[in-house]
Amino acid sequence: MKIARLSAADDGFERVAEAPEDPRVVETVGEIIAHVRAEGDAAVLEYTRRFDRVKAERIDDLRISADAAAAALKSLDAGLRSAMELAAERIRDYSERQALDSWETSAGGVTLGQRVTPLDSAGVYVPGGAASYPSSVLMNVIPAHIAGVPRIAATVPAREGELSPAVLAAFALCEVEEMWMVGGAQAVAALAYGTESIRPVAKIVGPGNAYVAEAKRQVFGQVGIDSIAGASEVVIVGDGGGDPEWAAADLIAQAEHDENVRVVLLCPDGAFLDKVEDAIEGMLAAQPRRRIIEAALENKGCFMEVADLDAALDAANRIAPEHLQLAFDGAEERVDEVRNAGAIFIGRHTSAVLGDYCAGPNHVLPTGGTARFSSPLGVYEFQKRSSTIACTAAAAAALGETAATLAEAEGLYAHATAASLRRNLRRSAS
Amino acid sequence: MKIARLSAADDGFERVAEAPEDPRVVETVGEIIAHVRAEGDAAVLEYTRRFDRVKAERIDDLRISADAAAAALKSLDAGLRSAMELAAERIRDYSERQALDSWETSAGGVTLGQRVTPLDSAGVYVPGGAASYPSSVLMNVIPAHIAGVPRIAATVPAREGELSPAVLAAFALCEVEEMWMVGGAQAVAALAYGTESIRPVAKIVGPGNAYVAEAKRQVFGQVGIDSIAGASEVVIVGDGGGDPEWAAADLIAQAEHDENVRVVLLCPDGAFLDKVEDAIEGMLAAQPRRRIIEAALENKGCFMEVADLDAALDAANRIAPEHLQLAFDGAEERVDEVRNAGAIFIGRHTSAVLGDYCAGPNHVLPTGGTARFSSPLGVYEFQKRSSTIACTAAAAAALGETAATLAEAEGLYAHATAASLRRNLRRSAS
Repeated sequence: MKIARLSAADDGFERVAEAPEDPRVVETVGEIIAHVRAEGDAAVLEYTRRFDRVKAERIDDLRISADAAAAALKSLDAGLRSAMELAAERIRDYSERQALDSWETSAGGVTLGQRVTPLDSAGVYVPGGAASYPSSVLMNVIPAHIAGVPRIAATVPAREGELSPAVLAAFALCEVEEMWMVGGAQAVAALAYGTESIRPVAKIVGPGNAYVAEAKRQVFGQVGIDSIAGASEVVIVGDGGGDPEWAAADLIAQAEHDENVRVVLLCPDGAFLDKVEDAIEGMLAAQPRRRIIEAALENKGCFMEVADLDAALDAANRIAPEHLQLAFDGAEERVDEVRNAGAIFIGRHTSAVLGDYCAGPNHVLPTGGTARFSSPLGVYEFQKRSSTIACTAAAAAALGETAATLAEAEGLYAHATAASLRRNLRRSAS
Repeated sequence: MKIARLSAADDGFERVAEAPEDPRVVETVGEIIAHVRAEGDAAVLEYTRRFDRVKAERIDDLRISADAAAAALKSLDAGLRSAMELAAERIRDYSERQALDSWETSAGGVTLGQRVTPLDSAGVYVPGGAASYPSSVLMNVIPAHIAGVPRIAATVPAREGELSPAVLAAFALCEVEEMWMVGGAQAVAALAYGTESIRPVAKIVGPGNAYVAEAKRQVFGQVGIDSIAGASEVVIVGDGGGDPEWAAADLIAQAEHDENVRVVLLCPDGAFLDKVEDAIEGMLAAQPRRRIIEAALENKGCFMEVADLDAALDAANRIAPEHLQLAFDGAEERVDEVRNAGAIFIGRHTSAVLGDYCAGPNHVLPTGGTARFSSPLGVYEFQKRSSTIACTAAAAAALGETAATLAEAEGLYAHATAASLRRNLRRSAS
């Protein structure tokens, strides 16, 4: 296994070419969405029987009962349950600080405000397939609850009708009331357009495979989406000090997600890069997901010997990674130099895996350089703003003069008329 | 001219079918983007010469100088200038209240935070074509400045090389430093991917025609976008009181934007609907944009006699309009019943046209029902958040236990390893 060594002078090092969109995925997803829009429940049933081999006769057979979730939570391993409860509490504490508040201000007869309201409803896609992700339930549902979303509909694929007890338990822990064992593009289509039994939602959040990502892309506009999740990434900035095994373990952890994960180590000390590479080699044998890890490291692993920490931070800003670990002495003093990153892990002790599960901040983070313009999932993603404007008669007349002048300059004479009607009022009253 | 009368019982009244995407627009825009990516400046020059008939030899000929903008501001009509300055001041005052702040909190050896940073850069698309929109410059640039975006690049199409003096003056008033007379999909492509002379931006904002909207859709992911602007909308809720001419003028004002604008009047008093329709007929003759207004009213105008104001507000929430006017007595007491609207204009005196120009809130608002899940343009659209996490050795060890338990439950053993390395530390130290 060989990890690429790049230089900050290499053109375009900051972006790894994403796999081009597979036209068959685009087409298949388009067909699935069209079929669900046309046939509703029947199409959802048909796809779920075909793709997930669930034996279901009616759409109601795909409903997950609150009792089943409660039972799973009750019989959950005690250690796992308390870990889940601790994580939920920390996520809740952090998320509560994110809630946006309404405000209002008055001056000269004009009251202006920004009203913050929760979405009417949210759909949460919980990935299934090979693994199960109870942590995704916590990370997606808790912020929606805090925002005050009155209806949360969760969907999760269930191969052969089998559901992960940990995911069921997480549903119960988060008090999710509406759950469907439906996955893939058909779940996204049902949440976006609605069927006879599954009402449409205002926004769909949560990660998924390529079909789910493409389906979210295609329904965007009809509903809101959180983001189109790409492959995961970590950038570690080291100073050459500390245990190479820690950096190695953090890189391996990220790499085990899938073969397209990008792991990057930036360090001014070339010898440290070698030590980390050796440590990775030494740790690989014990890893059950060794093949995935090796593929990710070979595909997209990148070690860079940089001139100094300034150069490392500059490179990190250009990459705009999902996870950025500042694993060097005095890291807390240099956080302000980071402009683009989804989550910043400060100091050698702070591994990104803590953020994946239980530190508190959300693990749904912008990928693929989108941290240049987007933010982690949070309570604010389940809230929206409306501007409010209220004018007294006199204030409307005064503002109407300004509006009419500007409208005329833009050739929008009906705007000027509407503004002037109120303006004339003041004159007739005076 | 006949305005449709609908009932809240009519299936699907809340959404008007959008014109389906024109496959030729999609294809043409795809070609333009690919050509700009491949050929850079040369492609931008070629398209600008062809589509806008600008006589330019080199890309630098498409640069708008700060001197030209300053000169336009200097020679602007004094009344227009002071209207523009008043509008800018009000937009600035309102927008400043929208800025997000960073925060940090510490407990048990874990310091968590949310860092708010401005985008590195933003591209502002200013529409040109038949009309000119200096108000768009103000509404898009002022929030970006307040967010602290260090680089703002504005583009505006210039037919035959002609630029609107009012738009130039608005650039100077907003102190925009980088301006290009480039429009259409080629402007969006240049801002998204960069050329030899136009550096790429992190996010592109601003309205435009169908080609611009499609280009923004296609480059989304490579860069952020504010929204894909659809046709404008207004919903007016009346109680049957007040001057029918006011409602008529506000509906006409919205309708003059273009033929696809949707105007809706909801009122429990059927006679009032008739009076407003008569008032519209009476006012039409004097309107320079009469043809557009008539087409919009016939295409998508909708008057609904509702049972009462409760029913009207329910219908408004289902429509989730861009502009919602609550033009009835006691409107301020019922604002809390509005869940979905871009901007809410409260009371008979508050026409949406005041919000279009100078009330203070942004005029870039969610259209086509997207107010169910999205917000007006604001300072927050030019900011992003990064989570921050810093753990002491002991805290990392403690959280590591929880993380390892959850990672094992998900079958992510390398995550468990990374979490445990820190956990073991505490044990070896104790």
